[in-house]
Amino acid sequence: MINIKENDDLNILNHSCAHLLAHAVKRLYPEAKFWVGPVIDDGFYYDIDIDKSLTIDDLSLIEKEMKKISKSDKKIVRMELSRDEAMSMFKNDPYKIDIISSLDNDAIISAYKQDDFVDLCRGPHMPTTKSMKYFKLLKVSGAYYKGDSNNKMLQRIYGVCFYNEEDLKKYLTELEEAKERDHRKIGRELGIFMTSDLVGKGLPMYLPNGYVIWETLENYIKEKEKKLGYKHVLTPPLGNVELYKTSGHWDHYRDDMFPVMEVDGEEFVLRPMNCPHHMMIYANSIHSYRDLPIRIGEIARDCRFEASGALKGIERARSFCQNDAHLFVTLEQIESEFKSVVDLILECYKELNITNYHFELSLRDKEDKIKYYQDDEMWDKAEGMLRRVLDDIGIDYIEKTGEAAFYGPKLDVQVKPAVGNPITISTCQLDFCLPMKFNLSYIDKDGSKKTPVVIHRAVFGSIDRFIAYYLEETKGVLPCFLSPIQVNIIPVNLEYHLDYSNMINKVLINKGFRTSVDTRDEKLSYKMRDSQTKKIPFSLILGDREKEGNLISYRMHGSNETTTLEIDEFIDHLSKTIAEKK
Amino acid sequence: MINIKENDDLNILNHSCAHLLAHAVKRLYPEAKFWVGPVIDDGFYYDIDIDKSLTIDDLSLIEKEMKKISKSDKKIVRMELSRDEAMSMFKNDPYKIDIISSLDNDAIISAYKQDDFVDLCRGPHMPTTKSMKYFKLLKVSGAYYKGDSNNKMLQRIYGVCFYNEEDLKKYLTELEEAKERDHRKIGRELGIFMTSDLVGKGLPMYLPNGYVIWETLENYIKEKEKKLGYKHVLTPPLGNVELYKTSGHWDHYRDDMFPVMEVDGEEFVLRPMNCPHHMMIYANSIHSYRDLPIRIGEIARDCRFEASGALKGIERARSFCQNDAHLFVTLEQIESEFKSVVDLILECYKELNITNYHFELSLRDKEDKIKYYQDDEMWDKAEGMLRRVLDDIGIDYIEKTGEAAFYGPKLDVQVKPAVGNPITISTCQLDFCLPMKFNLSYIDKDGSKKTPVVIHRAVFGSIDRFIAYYLEETKGVLPCFLSPIQVNIIPVNLEYHLDYSNMINKVLINKGFRTSVDTRDEKLSYKMRDSQTKKIPFSLILGDREKEGNLISYRMHGSNETTTLEIDEFIDHLSKTIAEKK
Repeated sequence: MINIKENDDLNILNHSCAHLLAHAVKRLYPEAKFWVGPVIDDGFYYDIDIDKSLTIDDLSLIEKEMKKISKSDKKIVRMELSRDEAMSMFKNDPYKIDIISSLDNDAIISAYKQDDFVDLCRGPHMPTTKSMKYFKLLKVSGAYYKGDSNNKMLQRIYGVCFYNEEDLKKYLTELEEAKERDHRKIGRELGIFMTSDLVGKGLPMYLPNGYVIWETLENYIKEKEKKLGYKHVLTPPLGNVELYKTSGHWDHYRDDMFPVMEVDGEEFVLRPMNCPHHMMIYANSIHSYRDLPIRIGEIARDCRFEASGALKGIERARSFCQNDAHLFVTLEQIESEFKSVVDLILECYKELNITNYHFELSLRDKEDKIKYYQDDEMWDKAEGMLRRVLDDIGIDYIEKTGEAAFYGPKLDVQVKPAVGNPITISTCQLDFCLPMKFNLSYIDKDGSKKTPVVIHRAVFGSIDRFIAYYLEETKGVLPCFLSPIQVNIIPVNLEYHLDYSNMINKVLINKGFRTSVDTRDEKLSYKMRDSQTKKIPFSLILGDREKEGNLISYRMHGSNETTTLEIDEFIDHLSKTIAEKK
Repeated sequence: MINIKENDDLNILNHSCAHLLAHAVKRLYPEAKFWVGPVIDDGFYYDIDIDKSLTIDDLSLIEKEMKKISKSDKKIVRMELSRDEAMSMFKNDPYKIDIISSLDNDAIISAYKQDDFVDLCRGPHMPTTKSMKYFKLLKVSGAYYKGDSNNKMLQRIYGVCFYNEEDLKKYLTELEEAKERDHRKIGRELGIFMTSDLVGKGLPMYLPNGYVIWETLENYIKEKEKKLGYKHVLTPPLGNVELYKTSGHWDHYRDDMFPVMEVDGEEFVLRPMNCPHHMMIYANSIHSYRDLPIRIGEIARDCRFEASGALKGIERARSFCQNDAHLFVTLEQIESEFKSVVDLILECYKELNITNYHFELSLRDKEDKIKYYQDDEMWDKAEGMLRRVLDDIGIDYIEKTGEAAFYGPKLDVQVKPAVGNPITISTCQLDFCLPMKFNLSYIDKDGSKKTPVVIHRAVFGSIDRFIAYYLEETKGVLPCFLSPIQVNIIPVNLEYHLDYSNMINKVLINKGFRTSVDTRDEKLSYKMRDSQTKKIPFSLILGDREKEGNLISYRMHGSNETTTLEIDEFIDHLSKTIAEKK
C-alpha cells in the first residue's frame, strides 16, 4: 500500500483535507476546538476538542459537510503573521495559543484561510477546497491531549484523500483487505497467540494452536538443516555486556537493546542477536581445515527493545526466535555453502508455496574506503562467487552496489505480500570481520593458522515474523501440515453417530494426525460452518451411510463438494496431502 | 556424601585439623603467615601467605609433619585475651591484626595453643593433637587475600579429617567417584556443554552433542504429554513486574530474581518461573466445566539469579528450562489428574532406568492456622485424594506433615544419585491460591462461576538439571536413544574398507540413526579405544569379511564381544534397542 506521508503530492493533498475536515466540523459544531492534524502513513487525522463522543453516523454527516465545502470551491489563502498577530487572531483558542507559545518570538507564523475558517499551518496547501474531492473518513477514536492520560480526552478523526476516485477505491479495498488479513485478527480468531499488558507490551504468548504451527515449522527447518550437516545448539537469551563489546554490537546496537542488569559485579543484557554466542562455541575447540565447514544452527531466543508504537503482534515483538545459523567456512568454501543456502531457501519457498519474491545482492562500493572492511581481493573473490551461484541457479536478482554491510556482501530475499510493501524473509550474509574480533581460527593444510569466514543465514528470519507473514498471506487457511487441527469430525446425529465418530477419531490420532470431534449439541449446518470458520482443512461428516459402510465423507475447506472414501483410502489421502505440504 | 560443615562432631574435628595443618606449615616454613581456615561442606581449608607455589609433593611433606605433631599428643589449650592482649600477642602478624581490628573493643578474644603454635579461633577444639589422626590433604590452589584480585595471592590448602580410618577411606572413595561422575567433567569430555565467563557466569551453552540429548528429552516428554491431552504453549522468558506482583512472587521470590529492566515507563523482569504466564493463558478465554481439565505444558525458559558460588554447570545455572505444566481442574478431577501425573512419572523413570527413589507427600499442619490457606474441607478432600492415589498405585511414600506449601499439598520424588544426597527430580503440587489471585474461573453445570484448582507439575524438573543428574548417574554412558552418536563406524583399513563403511553409514543415516565414520589415519586399536572413550553405544568394525559378506560386526560399549549380523538384522536390533530406551 502506498505510503501517503512519504508521497509529496499526496502529503499536501491530505494535509489540506485535514483542514477541510476541521472546517466542516467547525460548521457543524461551532464550539469545537482543534489541536493538531498531521499527515500519517495511512492518510491524516485531526484531534478535536468537542464535548461529544463522535460516532460513525457523525462521520457521515461531517463527510457530507466536507463535500459541500469542497463543491463551493473556496480559495485557500496563505497568511503570514507575526507572533503577536497570531496570538491576537487565535486569542480564544487555547490549543492554538499553546502551539504559538512554543514558537520563537521572531518566527513568521503561517496560517491558511478558506472561507471563514482559518487554521495555523506550515503548508503548502492545495489552491482551493475543490481539490479535495475523493476522500473518506475512516474512523474516530479517543486520544488524550498531548498523549497524556492526565489530560482531556480529545476526538481523533482519521481520513484519507486521493486525486481521483479510482485511487481512493483501490486504497479502501486494500485497506479492507489488510484489515481482513491482519495477523492479529486471524491470530485472535484462530487461537494462535495472545497479548496482554500485564504480561508485558510486546511479549506475545503462543496459545496451543499457535504452538502447533511453531513446533511444526521448527521441526521442518531443523530436519532440513540436519540433512545439510548443520549441528544445532542451545544458548541462553542473555549474555555478559563484555560479549557484546567484543563483538562490536555494544557500540552499534545498544539503542535497540534492553537495559543492562547489573548484579554481583557482572553486567548482563538480553541479547539482540546470538552471533556472539555461536562465535564462542566455535572458539571452544581447535579446528582443522578438515573440520570445515562447521554449521551451527539454533532456533534462538533474542530480545530487542522496540518502541511501543512500533510493536505489532508477533510480526514485531520484543522477544522472538530467529531461525539462525552460522557457517564457518574457508574462502574456497564460500561458493558451495552459499549455493547450499540459496537452494535451501528455494526449496522451502517452493514447499510453502511462496511465489512472489525477488533476490537482492548487496555489494560494496569499491570507492568507499571508509565504510567497508578493506581487502579488495577477498571482496572481489566473494562477490564473484555469490554472483556466479545466482547466475548458475538462474534466478533473477538485483545488484545493489554500496548496500553491503561493512563486514561483507549479502543476499536478501524480498517477499511481496498480498497486501503491503515487500519484506525481507530470508538472508544470507558473508562476514569477514566477526571471526577476527573473536580471534577464530583453523589450522590449514600447511599447518598455518587461518581465520574462517562466517556466513550468517536465516531462512525464516524470525519464526514469529514468518508466522505473521504466512497467516496474512494465507488468510489463516494453512496447508494441512501446519494446521493446528487437520481433521474435524462432525457426527450427523450425536445419539447415533458419536461412537462411530469417536472410533474414527481414535484411528486418526493413533496415526499421528491432529483431530477434533464436535460433540456440541448444535445443528449440523452450524457445525459445518464453524469448521469452515476455524479454517480446518478436512471436515468429516459421519452419518448412517458412513457408519454402515465403514466409510468416511469429507469436505475440504472452502469446497462444497463431498467425497466418500474407505477409511484407509482417506488416511492415505491425508498422509499424502501432509507430505506434499498442501 | 556427608556434609562436614553441618555435622557438629566433624565440624570441630576439621576445625582442629586446620590448626594442625597451620602448625605443620609453620614448622616447615617459619616465614608463613596465616589468614583464615574455615570448615566447609567438604572438609576445611587454610589460606596461607607463603612465597612459594605449593605442589602436591609439598602437601605430602606437610602431611608427614602433621602426623608427627598428631603423634606427639600436644594438648590444645584455650586462651581468652582482651583486645589489647591479642593485639600485642599477634603484633608481627598483619593478617591476625586485620582480624582483631575488626572485632569490638571490649570483645573477649579466644585463641588456641598447641605446643608453640597459637592461632586465633572461636573454638571449640579437640583436646589434643592426637585426636586428628585420620586426615588427608586434598589439593592446593591460589586464592586472593579477601577474594580481591588486586590483593596478594595466597596458597589455599584443602583437607578433610575423620574419626576413624574407615570413614576417611569411604569419603575419599566417594570423592574420587564424585569427581569421576561430575557432570562438568563428563560434559567437557563428551562435548555436551561449555561455559565461558565472557558469555556470562551461570550461562552454560549446549554444544551439538548436548543439544541432541536435550532435543531428544524434549520430544520424549512432549510426546508423552500430548498423548495425555496436554496442550503446549510458548511464552517469553520475561514479563512485566506487575505480573509477579499479581502472582505474589514479587514479595516472596524477588531476591532470587535478576534486577528489573525499566524502560519506556514499563518495568520488565526475567521470569523465575512461568506459572503466571500460564495463568494468563487460561484467563484468555471463557471456560465451561466441560472443557476441564485443561493441561497447559511448556518447555519453559526461566532465569534465576543464583550466587556465583552456588553455580554448578548445568545443574545449577542462571538460565534453564523447566519441563513445566499447569493442569486446571475441578475439585473432583484432582484425583484422576494426580494419578495420571504419578503414572507418567513412574513410566518415565522405568523407561529411563531410574530405580533408586522414594515419594514424599507433604501435607499441611492442621494446627498451623497462619501458614496455610484456610479451607479445611478442601485440604481434607485433596489430601485424601492424593493419599488414595498413592495407596492404590501401591508405592511407598513418606508423609511429611507441615511440609506442604501454603497454597496446597504436594508430592515430591526424591531420587538418590550414585554419589551425594537425594535430589528432587519430579514434583506435583496442588494450588488453591494462584487461580484466585488471577481471578480464574469456569462456568459449572449449574451456571455458577467456580474457581479451578491448579496442579503444577514437572517430570524432569528442569531439563538441564535432569541432564546433569543423568550424566552423573550413567557416567556419560547414555542409553542409545539419547546418545549423540549412536553408531561409530571404523573401517579396518582406510584404503580397502572406507567405501563400504560410507555405504553402511548412508544406509543408517537414511534410517534416521545418528552416526559417525572414523576416517582418521590411525591404528584400529586406537580408534576402538576412542570409540569407547566417547561412550558410543555401537562401534562397527568393518573389514574384508564384512565387506565381502555384506555384513556388519559390532561391539557394544563396555564389551569385548563382537557380534556379526546381516545389515537388516543390525538395523532391526538397533531400532529395537532405541525403542526400548536401552
